[in-house]
Amino acid sequence: MYLVKVTVTYKESILDPKGEAINDALQRLGYRDVQSVELGKYFELRIAKSDRPIAEQVAEMCDRLLANVNMETYDYEITEMEAQS
Amino acid sequence: MYLVKVTVTYKESILDPKGEAINDALQRLGYRDVQSVELGKYFELRIAKSDRPIAEQVAEMCDRLLANVNMETYDYEITEMEAQS
Repeated sequence: MYLVKVTVTYKESILDPKGEAINDALQRLGYRDVQSVELGKYFELRIAKSDRPIAEQVAEMCDRLLANVNMETYDYEITEMEAQS
Repeated sequence: MYLVKVTVTYKESILDPKGEAINDALQRLGYRDVQSVELGKYFELRIAKSDRPIAEQVAEMCDRLLANVNMETYDYEITEMEAQS
């Protein structure tokens, strides 16, 4: 079994009003050292092992569903989970 | 300057209908090996150095704003960014 962590954020060129609103809120709470905030999506998937390479499957899932590749970029981290006894 | 990556997900006891809907969609796209999907929030913050411990500030920001601690748990990763020349 694999544990796959996917993060999806806006491309640099895309405005992120939610991120800015969160930054403003943090400033009002007194966190003046915050320079910028980006808000994105986080997915945690558990995927059974198969003969298909896992990274290839994950990239495909991101391209086809988890990210809007016109506006977003994605990154992922794959770790093998110990078999449950 | 610090780069802080925060992931926020639902607590185990909380239903995640969006995660289930995404899992269904992945199954329909043919990704039968996916066992579960959790959908959460991802924040990337850039925070200037100050005399206050960075981890303490980040935990506070999560508790006060970035996560709803009644329903969500959070995790964060802090890396020091090279000073821009």
